[in-house]
Amino acid sequence: MLEIRGIAVSEGIALANAYCLMEPDLTFERVTIADINTELTRFKAAVVQTKAELQEIYTIAQGKFGDEEAAIFAAHQLLLEDPEMLAAIEGKINIGISAEYALDEVSKMFIAMFEGMDNEYMQERAADIRDVSKRLLAHLLGVELPDISRLSSDVIIVAEDLTPSMTAQLDTKYVKGFITDIGGRTSHSAILARTLGIPAIVGTKTATQVIKQGAPIIMDGINGKILLDATAEISQFYVRQQQIQQQLQGELNQFRSLPSISADGLRVEIAGNIGKPEDVEMVNNAGGDGIGLFRTEFLYMERQELPNEEEQFTAYRTVLEKMQGKPTIVRTLDIGGDKNLPYFKLPVEMNPFLGYRAIRICLSHQEMFRTQLRALLRASAFGNLKIMFPMIATLDEFRLAKALLLEEKDHLKSEGILVSETIEVGIMIEIPSAAMIADIFAKEVDFFSIGTNDLIQYTLATDRMNENVSYLYQPYHPAILRLIKTVIDAAHQHDKWVGMCGEMAGDEVAIPILLALGLDEFSMTASSILKTRAQIAKYSQKQLLQHIEPILKLSTASEVEEYVKKYLIIHP
Amino acid sequence: MLEIRGIAVSEGIALANAYCLMEPDLTFERVTIADINTELTRFKAAVVQTKAELQEIYTIAQGKFGDEEAAIFAAHQLLLEDPEMLAAIEGKINIGISAEYALDEVSKMFIAMFEGMDNEYMQERAADIRDVSKRLLAHLLGVELPDISRLSSDVIIVAEDLTPSMTAQLDTKYVKGFITDIGGRTSHSAILARTLGIPAIVGTKTATQVIKQGAPIIMDGINGKILLDATAEISQFYVRQQQIQQQLQGELNQFRSLPSISADGLRVEIAGNIGKPEDVEMVNNAGGDGIGLFRTEFLYMERQELPNEEEQFTAYRTVLEKMQGKPTIVRTLDIGGDKNLPYFKLPVEMNPFLGYRAIRICLSHQEMFRTQLRALLRASAFGNLKIMFPMIATLDEFRLAKALLLEEKDHLKSEGILVSETIEVGIMIEIPSAAMIADIFAKEVDFFSIGTNDLIQYTLATDRMNENVSYLYQPYHPAILRLIKTVIDAAHQHDKWVGMCGEMAGDEVAIPILLALGLDEFSMTASSILKTRAQIAKYSQKQLLQHIEPILKLSTASEVEEYVKKYLIIHP
Repeated sequence: MLEIRGIAVSEGIALANAYCLMEPDLTFERVTIADINTELTRFKAAVVQTKAELQEIYTIAQGKFGDEEAAIFAAHQLLLEDPEMLAAIEGKINIGISAEYALDEVSKMFIAMFEGMDNEYMQERAADIRDVSKRLLAHLLGVELPDISRLSSDVIIVAEDLTPSMTAQLDTKYVKGFITDIGGRTSHSAILARTLGIPAIVGTKTATQVIKQGAPIIMDGINGKILLDATAEISQFYVRQQQIQQQLQGELNQFRSLPSISADGLRVEIAGNIGKPEDVEMVNNAGGDGIGLFRTEFLYMERQELPNEEEQFTAYRTVLEKMQGKPTIVRTLDIGGDKNLPYFKLPVEMNPFLGYRAIRICLSHQEMFRTQLRALLRASAFGNLKIMFPMIATLDEFRLAKALLLEEKDHLKSEGILVSETIEVGIMIEIPSAAMIADIFAKEVDFFSIGTNDLIQYTLATDRMNENVSYLYQPYHPAILRLIKTVIDAAHQHDKWVGMCGEMAGDEVAIPILLALGLDEFSMTASSILKTRAQIAKYSQKQLLQHIEPILKLSTASEVEEYVKKYLIIHP
Repeated sequence: MLEIRGIAVSEGIALANAYCLMEPDLTFERVTIADINTELTRFKAAVVQTKAELQEIYTIAQGKFGDEEAAIFAAHQLLLEDPEMLAAIEGKINIGISAEYALDEVSKMFIAMFEGMDNEYMQERAADIRDVSKRLLAHLLGVELPDISRLSSDVIIVAEDLTPSMTAQLDTKYVKGFITDIGGRTSHSAILARTLGIPAIVGTKTATQVIKQGAPIIMDGINGKILLDATAEISQFYVRQQQIQQQLQGELNQFRSLPSISADGLRVEIAGNIGKPEDVEMVNNAGGDGIGLFRTEFLYMERQELPNEEEQFTAYRTVLEKMQGKPTIVRTLDIGGDKNLPYFKLPVEMNPFLGYRAIRICLSHQEMFRTQLRALLRASAFGNLKIMFPMIATLDEFRLAKALLLEEKDHLKSEGILVSETIEVGIMIEIPSAAMIADIFAKEVDFFSIGTNDLIQYTLATDRMNENVSYLYQPYHPAILRLIKTVIDAAHQHDKWVGMCGEMAGDEVAIPILLALGLDEFSMTASSILKTRAQIAKYSQKQLLQHIEPILKLSTASEVEEYVKKYLIIHP
């Protein structure tokens, strides 16, 4: 039996076969060949197979996403009928070069040619040629390319990492877990896994090298262990563990209809983070008190143009209606950083996390921003809407964003359109400068929502996606705790409330500290809501408060973690 | 007369001809030709010219940098004798393709081929082919390529931006000013200009498009204006202004031998930032009280392997001896971010400024780090050495770095080598987390030096090199002022001193605030030392102190700037 260790980022136990999403080995020897006719036949057969495969993918994509999205696969089929390219390859085979070698040479030449052209459309064709050549090469070599949009049995996905576009393509129905080589708590695979309520283990470094395609594996997403070639005894042990987990989940379910309240009667709000209107069900199923973060990027991604006001209005209204009057915080567009839109050209930046993103883009593309604001204002009549601006670093930014909102509100009202008069307008606190002057902001905003993922990243100067420095992504660093205290104290002095929508809000070690500091709202992935409600129910906030002074005097993140685990985590 | 505006980042006035460092226009029509013989002759002539040019560059490089650095240009000459490549190009010309077209096709094919190889050496050859082909293409087209290592008369450099490698090649003798399209106060061209004491205007957006090669231009580096086609009258006005500036400089010179002291007798230290041992002269010429930042990267850059202990020892000793007992702060290696070493493979990162750099690299490459520490410890016997660790985010990092230093000290002492017993060991405060827990650090370090360039960048989540968000690089943001106050107060409570080695320390608006907050040491580019000393001499620190409370209550950077300009800047 072989054991691989990684970082457990979404709890649970899974037993299924591995589906390895690694780059296939498409290397080959650059050889000459003697039997030219056989080689030509082999090449032509690969072309036929590739075309058939593309046709199949085309049909699936058409059914799942529609004509427009599928069109690319039709274009790829046409490339395989391009006489110039086929003739060039066959010409090379005719002088005794192997089919793989000839394909590689010719496609490289065409790619270089298209990339060298000034015309953007032509440059994009280079990527198409690269894709098709890869597929063709795989057929020549008899290597199967992974296809994550078509799964037919339960699998555990094993990959170097998952990109946003991969998670979008992924058919999640049969996915029972994620294992990746790199990444941390906030990588895409971790977030997706928690949303799906399945286990995930990241940062294994070697999983893609060690785990064979289709191998039966056991993943223990509680302890961050992956077992290969397990004995029947071990497998049975994990099946039992899985049952125990399911039972614990059942016990948590009693908290579904209970209020979020501490043992000494302090009421807080435990809300859910969502990325799409469909996710509302999961929050409501978990008995969430509201939506603490509705990311609106989904409306803008995987399409060919900006969403219009009507589309946005419909989406916001749907969520607000489903929430039936419960507080629903919508965050305005947060693109840039690692999130790009195909139709919206963003500058190539050396440090996108420190670059042109979120409110920075919206304030310089005001028409786009105003469209979103109008859609939100119109939807406000259908529920309890709160609007939140992301990546605010200066007061000027908030003032400008709010002024635009009020202008649009006036426009709508003058057109006789109903707009709620009680919309709260707040900001994300995710940039250290905003946290440091929370007292200044507190005079002008209605609420804060602390975005710990980015706040930690900037405060520690560490990219949480970068495994070389992910050890510095320290939620319990005394600087982070002090910044959070600064923000909560400043808000409360001005009778404003403070939420948190980063990963930290659902973190077992952070929760007692946040409760003691007076955090008013905890927003998290739906699958953590019940556990958090159960944990908070055990605490007396007044007793926790006595620990704040000693905790804030600790010197390092690990000292904080040890302290909390020793004194504040109550196990059943 | 045409006026271009930009951001003035280094003061002064210059009148000289433009030297435009833009990418030359090497586009050509892809045509066929009728007269094959003439085309072949034209191609061969271009090869001969290119070889002669490379020989000339080789000779200059050899004289300036030595055999090793020049070798690359010999290799480039050899490429022009490569029979396979020449035959391929001539073959294409022979079937009626123009020389430019043939060269482009063949070089692209060779580049693709070399880039596709697994062997790193071969991959690097692709860059060589790209360079040589470009040079050859320029000769074919009769276009002159810019060569910044050979200037022969006074020029003002006009470029899109200057990279570190360009500034290294630049023959600075004849450079009277810099003008760039992009960049901000801390871009390479700005820093180099201040070091050289010449004017620089950045962020003009259009300079490279508007200014013609060789055009006479006037640059007003005080107001950020560039004038083209100026009348004789205007030119005379600026010549007079230049003289007035020189006179003002003369008046500042009286401060050279005066102490750095406020009007009410508070003594501070005004030190210089240096990047190479030679820079010590400039600091001493300006009457600097010490070196507040000696960047040690120069020892590691532009070479083929890590510098050994002896080389480093010699460099540190040289600086310490030249400083004759004045305090000299050496910062340990700060690579990563935008600084790479050719022989030290760093990971490719999505956000290098939030990545693996400085102390993070040193703590995981301890042998390299120990070599530097030993060299520093040995040099400590020859002057007043203080050691400073960059990019400290957690107490653990400082403790580990200091432990390594003490270990090496013990080793050296056990070998009987003399080491100073009074070396102060401090940290850069350039990451918000370190500023927030300065009280915790203050118990263990001997001093702080606030690195405002990075601190502002992280606190505002803005890449100062990125022109799309450079407006957010706000030194006067209340959050920055509060963080600085936090650091100074924490240090003084533990009887430690605080310096500042970022651009802000020499900034006219920041200086009265920093003096009031109690900053002990101001370290800056040598050319700002006298101006700062003159400014500080005008202030009563006690009177300034009364302004701190109102300033720290201001809401935005521009409010702070207006306040200081209105109440605290004293003009002669």
